This record gives sequence, structure tokens and C-alpha cells, in this order.
Amino acid sequence: MIQAKGYAAQNAETDLAPWGFERREVGPHDVQLEILYCGVCHSDLHQIKNDWFPGLFPMVPGHEIVGRVIKVGDHVKNFKVDDLAGVGCMVDSCQVCENCKEGLEQYCLEGNTQTYNNLDRSGVPTYGGYSNTIVVREEFVLHISDKLSLAATAPLLCAGITTYSPLRHWKVGKGHKLAILGLGGLGHMGVKFGVAFGADVTVLSTSPSKEAAAKALGAHHFVVTSDPAQLEAVKGSFDFILDTVSAEHDMNLYLSLLKTNGTHICVGAPSEPMSIHTFSLLLGRRSVAGSGIGGIKETQEMLDFCAEHNIVSDIEIIDIKNITAAYERMLKGDVRYRFVIDMATL
Amino acid sequence: MIQAKGYAAQNAETDLAPWGFERREVGPHDVQLEILYCGVCHSDLHQIKNDWFPGLFPMVPGHEIVGRVIKVGDHVKNFKVDDLAGVGCMVDSCQVCENCKEGLEQYCLEGNTQTYNNLDRSGVPTYGGYSNTIVVREEFVLHISDKLSLAATAPLLCAGITTYSPLRHWKVGKGHKLAILGLGGLGHMGVKFGVAFGADVTVLSTSPSKEAAAKALGAHHFVVTSDPAQLEAVKGSFDFILDTVSAEHDMNLYLSLLKTNGTHICVGAPSEPMSIHTFSLLLGRRSVAGSGIGGIKETQEMLDFCAEHNIVSDIEIIDIKNITAAYERMLKGDVRYRFVIDMATL
Repeated sequence: MIQAKGYAAQNAETDLAPWGFERREVGPHDVQLEILYCGVCHSDLHQIKNDWFPGLFPMVPGHEIVGRVIKVGDHVKNFKVDDLAGVGCMVDSCQVCENCKEGLEQYCLEGNTQTYNNLDRSGVPTYGGYSNTIVVREEFVLHISDKLSLAATAPLLCAGITTYSPLRHWKVGKGHKLAILGLGGLGHMGVKFGVAFGADVTVLSTSPSKEAAAKALGAHHFVVTSDPAQLEAVKGSFDFILDTVSAEHDMNLYLSLLKTNGTHICVGAPSEPMSIHTFSLLLGRRSVAGSGIGGIKETQEMLDFCAEHNIVSDIEIIDIKNITAAYERMLKGDVRYRFVIDMATL
Repeated sequence: MIQAKGYAAQNAETDLAPWGFERREVGPHDVQLEILYCGVCHSDLHQIKNDWFPGLFPMVPGHEIVGRVIKVGDHVKNFKVDDLAGVGCMVDSCQVCENCKEGLEQYCLEGNTQTYNNLDRSGVPTYGGYSNTIVVREEFVLHISDKLSLAATAPLLCAGITTYSPLRHWKVGKGHKLAILGLGGLGHMGVKFGVAFGADVTVLSTSPSKEAAAKALGAHHFVVTSDPAQLEAVKGSFDFILDTVSAEHDMNLYLSLLKTNGTHICVGAPSEPMSIHTFSLLLGRRSVAGSGIGGIKETQEMLDFCAEHNIVSDIEIIDIKNITAAYERMLKGDVRYRFVIDMATL
């Protein structure tokens, strides 16, 4: 076994703290990474706090992983030692179901194996990227370009693909009015991709103070949702709303901003169920949809698109010893827009 | 003014009772019908009881109207005296907005004028089809074939188009697994259209007793939703669920029956909001959509399709004096599948 070190929550009540654990040996189809950076996702906090479901503890969070290949198995074809590489939210899937065959491993009919807080296919707990190294089967390792800032690439593995995939699936682009709800880790990537795809992008936010930042990211318009006059002015105007908010919010209000046939796409995951009046959907043939990350092929496509179009996440690099303070700031929305742990500080 | 008679609710607490009222004179673009039959829709009951919003009283319900043309205005081109004709849920719209121009008058951006419980565009209350006659502008009058039972055609004007339109919009047909949730006025039409369009149709019902009836309507499969084993067997199996239920129901349960990329289409309208876990949508990129009736052009297309394929509603003809008893039976689900008032009994 490989001795690994990382930061773990021992249970849902304690803060993250240093922890030593074991990774499996590098098998014939595995790639081992030295982890250089790992992004801090809101879902890390949801999971260590059991917000969604009872977690597996000790839990090493982290699924926005970039690093360098330090070992490959005998049958690995697409990676070699010293390659830059990344790992996102999944480390395995059945590989044979209808969805896996279509490149939709995120919707694997057997359930994909999550990078942490999950049991792998042999029943061993998975541990995430807040650690110095990880071993992953080749099919779930991504190529990372050396053209971009490596640290700023890390959040693409979750925040990036989570917003890229639905915009591609619903073919959002030129001629569409796209609203981005929430301007955090996901939202700021949604703005960048929406603009890159040619949509007319509006950021919807409760904070008037975010306007300059939204425009700096490329947004064409900014609407303060606490101002009834501004909201009224955009009623029935959007083809799509990309909803990145993971706190409770008034879905019926936002649905009223959609055009006829408009789609509200949820990528954030509030702990509490949404309350939706059927009439909010009936009047205007509107839809509420959900989308979860993206498949491996599409994640690589997204990374390549980002390298080509010079798109990365806006980040603040932190020392892993400050992770709890970073969570507190994240909860207050005090981060532009993603914390990334420099794993050299471990 | 034209003296009309009908059955009205004087307020939300009283039963329907005979009432005399006035209709406008036939204008140059108007058609006057002698009403021969009117279907009884669950929404009639919702509206006279203020379930959805405070109504306009006195209220004459009824928006599944068929009859014979008895007078036409000077400029009416498409109808003549003695034609069979129908009127559905709308009697007017702005006719100039983007949606009206696309034949989506039901989503008129100014709001369409509902056949009853609404003010018309000159501010006069509209009164529905539980009456002997109605005056409607030509654009909102439908041609009715004489090939079909006239009484059994009436429910096509609401129950028919409400199920036909979403199945067409989402292009449901061959190769699709379609579930119909609820086997009432809407649901039984959903089965007939789903089968006619070539889909593999399953009826989902709480009542095992409805299986034979569902199969008689053409359904290929029947699932008792109170039986966990039967539900488990159809998890993740449907491309579409057409949800005709207007009572509260467990949306997360039904969403779990959808395939990846599946769509749950609501056409019933419960008074209470739906409670939907975001994860029910995220896991499988599922959607919940709503659809309201259909446009005038599409309603005519549906009526023509029905005439060609010999599709009508299964009905029980009633005397208007028994309307309150019919409502009580409808609430208990004791009707196969639509009551239709014989207006000769008025």
C-alpha cells in the first residue's frame, strides 16, 4: 500500500485536521499523481457536515485535483511519468452500461464511484484531493494543458465541467439570453462559458456590490434580485437560467423570469427540497432541469476548450492549514471565486 | 344583448344553480353557437371553489363546448350557420405578440382571455359553456367533424388538447416509453394519444382495479404505484411521464422512474406547490416541465387527427341538474372518464 497524507474530517462535528492513510498500489491500469493543487468546492463542506446524507468518516474531501504523474501501470497507454494530469468528481464507473458507453459516466446506471466519501468497486473508501497523492484508473484521469495556470485549472474539474456540460447539452449560444444565478465558484465559470459560447449573459445577484466583478468576468448585464423594479424589467426574458445557488431560494420568482419554453437548469444542490408551483411551469411551458458534472470525454473536451480560449477559474491560493477559515469565508460568499489549496503546504 | 341561461355558482360556497345572464351581440367577427354539449373538467370545480385564486362570481363554468353555429358576423369567413363548432379554454388573446403570432395563444404575452372566470378585453366577465349559447370571435372557434360522436368530442377541447400538445411538443412517439400518471379525464386521453403516436404506454395508478380499463384504452402496461415491487421494476425506465394528477403527489418518487434525460410533464395543477429535491433532477439530468392546453391551430390539428383516427373521449352524459352529484363523483374518481352535460336538459 502507498502511505498518503492529507486533511480529513474524523466526523461531521470536527474541523479538518492532518491524517495519514493508505492508497492502493498502482495497478496495471492505474495512474498515480502527485497532487499539486486541489480546489475547494462548496460540496466539500456539504459532505463533511452531512448536509446531504450521512458521510463515510474519516473523510478526505477534494475533487478538483491537478498534479503530475509520478507512476503508471504497465497497461496505461495515455499517460506517462511527468505528464500534467487532473482528476475530478469521479474515479470509476461500471464502464459497460448504456450511459457509460455514451460517455455519460456521471449517470452510470450502477452509480459512479465518487472521488471521496464513497466506496470504490472493491468496497474500499475513496479519499479525495486534500492530500499529497492519489491513484486512479486511467480512464478517469484527464490531460491538463501546460498553457494555463495549473492552480487556476484545478476548479475546472468540478466548477468548470458542472457549468460547461449543461450549457453544451442545452446548446446555449448565440441568440440566447442566459441568466447566471449566483456568482460564486460555479457562477463565475458559467459567465465565462456563456460568454465564450456567444450567449447574451446576465448575472442575477442579491449583492449590488458584485456588478463590477460580474462585468469584469464578461457578463453583459447585471440584475440586483432584491430590487423589484430590476426584476420586473427582466420578467419573461431569459431562454435559460443556470442556477448555481446551493442555499434555498424562491424558484417561482426565478421561473417567472423565463421566456415561453425557457429552461431553469439547477447545478447547485440545496439541502432542502425546492417548492415549485405547477402554474410556474404550466404558464409558459417552462422546465426545471438538473445537471450533474459531465462525462469524462466531455470533461477533456472542456479542458481543451479552456486551453484554446484561455479560460481558467479566478482563484485565491491558500495554505491547507487555513482550510477551516476558508470554509467560513466561502459560507459568507467571501471568495473570488474559488479557493485552491497549494498542496506544497501540506 | 343576447339573453342566455346557464348554471352558475353565485360564490365559492354555493352549489351551481340556474341563472339568467347576457352575452354580447354577435359582432362582425363573431360566431354564435347553440351549445349542445359541454364537458365537465376538474378545473371547473377548482375554480368555483377558489382553489387556485379568488374567482369572479357569478361564475358559469365550462370550457369543453360543442354545438351548432346559429349566427355569424358579416366578416366571418370560416363558419356558416348550421356548422358544427367548438370552443375550448380560450376565447381571445392579443393576436399580435410573438407567441400569438407563432400560434401559441395559450401563452399570449398579454395573457389570453379564458372562456370563463376572466374579464374579456373590454373588461366584461366571460361566462362558460354550462349554458345554452355563447358568442366567440371567429379565431377562437374550432371546426368539429360530423364523423364522431358530438358529445364525446366535447372533452377534446380541454382534456384532449392538454394531453395532445405536450406529446407533440416533446415529440413523443415510436421508441419512447411513456408513462401516464393518473387515469381520469386527462389521463385516458393521454393513453389514447400516446398509443396513437406509437409510444410504449404504461399507466401508473394507485388503483389495481383500473388495470383492465387501462388496457382497454390501449395501454401496453399497468403499474400499481402502491406496490413497491412493481415500482422498483420500472425505476429509471421511462423517457416521459405525463402527469395528469391534480392532487398532491410524491414528485421525487415519480422522478426516480425516469431514464437519464427523461422529462416529467405536468398538465394537472395541484393547489399546493410541488416539493422537488434538486438531486432528483441532478442525478440523471432529468426535467420537470409544465404544459398548458394548446394553441388554436394545434387544437384544430388535434381535432382533425381525432376525426381521422376515430379518437374521442370516453364519456358519461349527464343532466345539468345533476352537476353537483357529478362533481362529487369526479372527486372520488368515479367517472369513466369524463362527464358531459347534455345541454338539452338545461
